[in-house]
Amino acid sequence: MSRGLFVTLEGGDGSGKSTQASLLEQWLAEHGRAVLRTREPGGTPVGVEVREIVLHHRGDVAPRAEALLYAADRAHHVATVVRPAIARGDVVVQDRYVDSSVAYQGAGRVLDAREVRALSDWATEGLMPDLTVLLDLPWDVAQGRLQDARTRYDRLEAEAGEFHARVRDAYLGLAAAEPERFLVVDATLPVDEIAARISERVEPLL
Amino acid sequence: MSRGLFVTLEGGDGSGKSTQASLLEQWLAEHGRAVLRTREPGGTPVGVEVREIVLHHRGDVAPRAEALLYAADRAHHVATVVRPAIARGDVVVQDRYVDSSVAYQGAGRVLDAREVRALSDWATEGLMPDLTVLLDLPWDVAQGRLQDARTRYDRLEAEAGEFHARVRDAYLGLAAAEPERFLVVDATLPVDEIAARISERVEPLL
Repeated sequence: MSRGLFVTLEGGDGSGKSTQASLLEQWLAEHGRAVLRTREPGGTPVGVEVREIVLHHRGDVAPRAEALLYAADRAHHVATVVRPAIARGDVVVQDRYVDSSVAYQGAGRVLDAREVRALSDWATEGLMPDLTVLLDLPWDVAQGRLQDARTRYDRLEAEAGEFHARVRDAYLGLAAAEPERFLVVDATLPVDEIAARISERVEPLL
Repeated sequence: MSRGLFVTLEGGDGSGKSTQASLLEQWLAEHGRAVLRTREPGGTPVGVEVREIVLHHRGDVAPRAEALLYAADRAHHVATVVRPAIARGDVVVQDRYVDSSVAYQGAGRVLDAREVRALSDWATEGLMPDLTVLLDLPWDVAQGRLQDARTRYDRLEAEAGEFHARVRDAYLGLAAAEPERFLVVDATLPVDEIAARISERVEPLL
């Protein structure tokens, strides 16, 4: 049986996480690995309901409530989806995880980043990814991509560009603090070039 | 302007919390006080959605996810309803609060009671009631009352009697640890007698 592996993709909306997750899944399948692709928020039926509350609730959700809802989604997702998949030897390729919460909630909003991280640690009983790929993109580039794609409106995307600049800085700070866990890739590179850098980093972990 | 006051009612289902909340509200109104009656989970539109997930979701919700959902409901409720009411001088009369989480989740389930309490403290930024009324009732009496009333089925009520006995013990332990905050009343007493004991304890706080 293969050893289970947990890979997360991070970065702002429009940075290409879904595209790279697909290419990584394909590359892993070619290397004979069973892959579970998933995401947060919303990777479980419970999570879908939580996601609806967080992203589309009319009126504001209090900042601590929002952080707790994301943590609830994560707790259920890790306990019922991610840990079982790792235990059976799958490679879990996941769109967003702990670093999203810290970057968006902690650094971007009014909450203390260490407290938000502690909340996630409690929710997941300390499960961290073997590898986190950060697709790094300046917000003006990301915004152009999103408008081109006419993605649906949601509350996070409605926030100002300044907020996204703070999120980007927070992500880069997290990556600098844990270089052994993070791979930072310039998301303005060609898609195939990004995919090659990711698979190169994943290969020795298999 | 009157000083705001925060009173919570605790106890198992069928212990008479709603009845006593109504009688207390009436007594407070007769004493010229503005009253906000509310409850957790479900005291806000966001909370109603959270309550639906927790109580009626098909399939199990992971224990940490359940605790985080209750904490999210609480964070939003305290920030948008309870604190503003106390600030304008109302008396908040609330069905269930922190002690429910600790008694049900911490003592009754698999989670550490201190961790569940810490989660609530983070969610509420440490807001505790001025008075907590514990309506203490043996589970066999409560069960008989519930069956008589043909209340709707929910997941908590479906748990076994042994679980409820542990919850009752946990409640009594919390009350013993904070006698200055708690009033414990024998819920098998006549309704008017219980109401009299509660208003007697509330009066000097007004």
